[in-house]
Amino acid sequence: MSVSSRERITLIGLGTIGMSMAGLHLSRDNTIVDVFDTRPNFEDYLFKTLPNFLPESSPSSEDASLESTQSTSVTSLISSGRLHIHKSLETACASATIVQEQGPESLAFKQEIWAQIESFAPSTAHFWTSTSGIAASAQQSTMQDKTRLLVVHPFNPPHIMPLLEIVPSPTTAPERVEFAQEYFSQAGSRHRPVVIRKEIPGFVGNRLAFALLREACYLVQEDVVTAKDLDTILMASLGPRWAGNGVFESYQQGGGEGGIEAFLHKLGGTMQEVWDGLGKVNVLGEKGTAWKSKVIAQTNEAYGEFSAGQMREKEERLRDFVHVQTKKYGHGEPEV
Amino acid sequence: MSVSSRERITLIGLGTIGMSMAGLHLSRDNTIVDVFDTRPNFEDYLFKTLPNFLPESSPSSEDASLESTQSTSVTSLISSGRLHIHKSLETACASATIVQEQGPESLAFKQEIWAQIESFAPSTAHFWTSTSGIAASAQQSTMQDKTRLLVVHPFNPPHIMPLLEIVPSPTTAPERVEFAQEYFSQAGSRHRPVVIRKEIPGFVGNRLAFALLREACYLVQEDVVTAKDLDTILMASLGPRWAGNGVFESYQQGGGEGGIEAFLHKLGGTMQEVWDGLGKVNVLGEKGTAWKSKVIAQTNEAYGEFSAGQMREKEERLRDFVHVQTKKYGHGEPEV
Repeated sequence: MSVSSRERITLIGLGTIGMSMAGLHLSRDNTIVDVFDTRPNFEDYLFKTLPNFLPESSPSSEDASLESTQSTSVTSLISSGRLHIHKSLETACASATIVQEQGPESLAFKQEIWAQIESFAPSTAHFWTSTSGIAASAQQSTMQDKTRLLVVHPFNPPHIMPLLEIVPSPTTAPERVEFAQEYFSQAGSRHRPVVIRKEIPGFVGNRLAFALLREACYLVQEDVVTAKDLDTILMASLGPRWAGNGVFESYQQGGGEGGIEAFLHKLGGTMQEVWDGLGKVNVLGEKGTAWKSKVIAQTNEAYGEFSAGQMREKEERLRDFVHVQTKKYGHGEPEV
Repeated sequence: MSVSSRERITLIGLGTIGMSMAGLHLSRDNTIVDVFDTRPNFEDYLFKTLPNFLPESSPSSEDASLESTQSTSVTSLISSGRLHIHKSLETACASATIVQEQGPESLAFKQEIWAQIESFAPSTAHFWTSTSGIAASAQQSTMQDKTRLLVVHPFNPPHIMPLLEIVPSPTTAPERVEFAQEYFSQAGSRHRPVVIRKEIPGFVGNRLAFALLREACYLVQEDVVTAKDLDTILMASLGPRWAGNGVFESYQQGGGEGGIEAFLHKLGGTMQEVWDGLGKVNVLGEKGTAWKSKVIAQTNEAYGEFSAGQMREKEERLRDFVHVQTKKYGHGEPEV
């Protein structure tokens, strides 16, 4: 089940993640992309939005000539047969080698759509869901064949962010997992797929993020630090550290000659004290949610809404960070 | 109590953090640095080690001519009066405007040394401790004047990493806090000092790191993911995200028009489920520590020991990330 020279990917649901996924797939020479979305005026929306996710476009809504260039780029993708807009799920799925879904985060929706997709798509097609929270094993309960579906969870924005969490259900066929890994690892891909070995709420990336977020909310609630100062702390230390090394590699280095074992020994006392005292706040319910109004108010005050220029700047900066990650420095190999 | 044109900083304890701090202070034109350390052959050690932390040196222990250049750079710092090596704590502190301590992480040591420093240093000198875990209020218990000491907690390596957590005790004078902030915020400084409003174990940066680490250890223990794959996940998503935006700013952006409030509403279900199920492992004691042997073994297998070349590469990459953070993109301001 190896990746062919010309995969044909059907994208179901073209919100922000879906558009970014379209950009990712279309950035590769060997793909055809079929798109289906139920929103009104989908075609107009696609012509207006997709160019923001295509390589080498520098969109600016103020610039009429640029906008015409952008529409042209979508037009040329269509005329060259690389992009097909569909009005029905059936035609969208008919020729797919991969069907990828970015619909609403509702179990009922996903169970319903996968049963339909299974009836429309070729029997060999791979089924990928971009869900951030609903396991493949739950989504596939109404499908006939429970070996085809797996989670391909991207991080926003997927056309720039390298990670894809590949999370099979216990019944997903191993060759389906290998295919997804291979697809995102192809030469020239900036993406880094990682297979998660067990279905678990939030998968791995969001579990790590939410573990840190819970403590962040607690520290703001307790007036230890403001939301903005906490963000500065993260950007000025852990962000760049973890952009360069993972957490285990960082502590392997931080432990010096004894590596992470020495680090755990040296910092164990402080670490246990911190672990014992981590904040236990909630996001749902009435109890332990006093932080919410404070965090929301401080975050709104610090950042407000982002302008188009700010969003563009953030994307460019993220590209720069990812570029640094793959830069060669010329002395990474052990010295002889 | 404003920062003068020529601060004179006494560094007590010149391990890795102390050397890096010396590099930080010497990178500024307006400083004199006095160093004191009790290790045998301290002077030889300083001549050999300090050049690694000075700007524009490219050390290589294999290269004799380079090594001579490095010694020269230390020699010239000494002959120009910018660096003084002391054989006693008393002379080291005698002319200080700032005394900064990077000694062992032992409460008894720190209480003892601060009482001595107080007796030797000018009465106006600022007292900073680089501790990662022992609050200023505990360290100062044997001092006469409890308004002078505060924590200046750096992140490794401080000559590159921008963050300094400034943590006063409840009795530290506000002008002492302002002075430290001003010192690290001076024009041309790449550093970002942040004041923590309450003493709390681990301060803020390590609390956030340890919150994430606990979940990381749990996920490795449960075989959800290997240590190396977890590191890849972090580097391919949260690292570059948090290098560019803090956690609150990221979710303000992720929430779209409704900002972080909309994000918390949309992801609240998954977030609560994750928070309720976060791993509760320990680092001390017998219970809940089964992860340790697995994490240590997987981390050693993945990374082993780092060569000098790899260490240099990591430093250069970290510098690149920090450089990207301060790069101007030309369209960050709101569009009119």
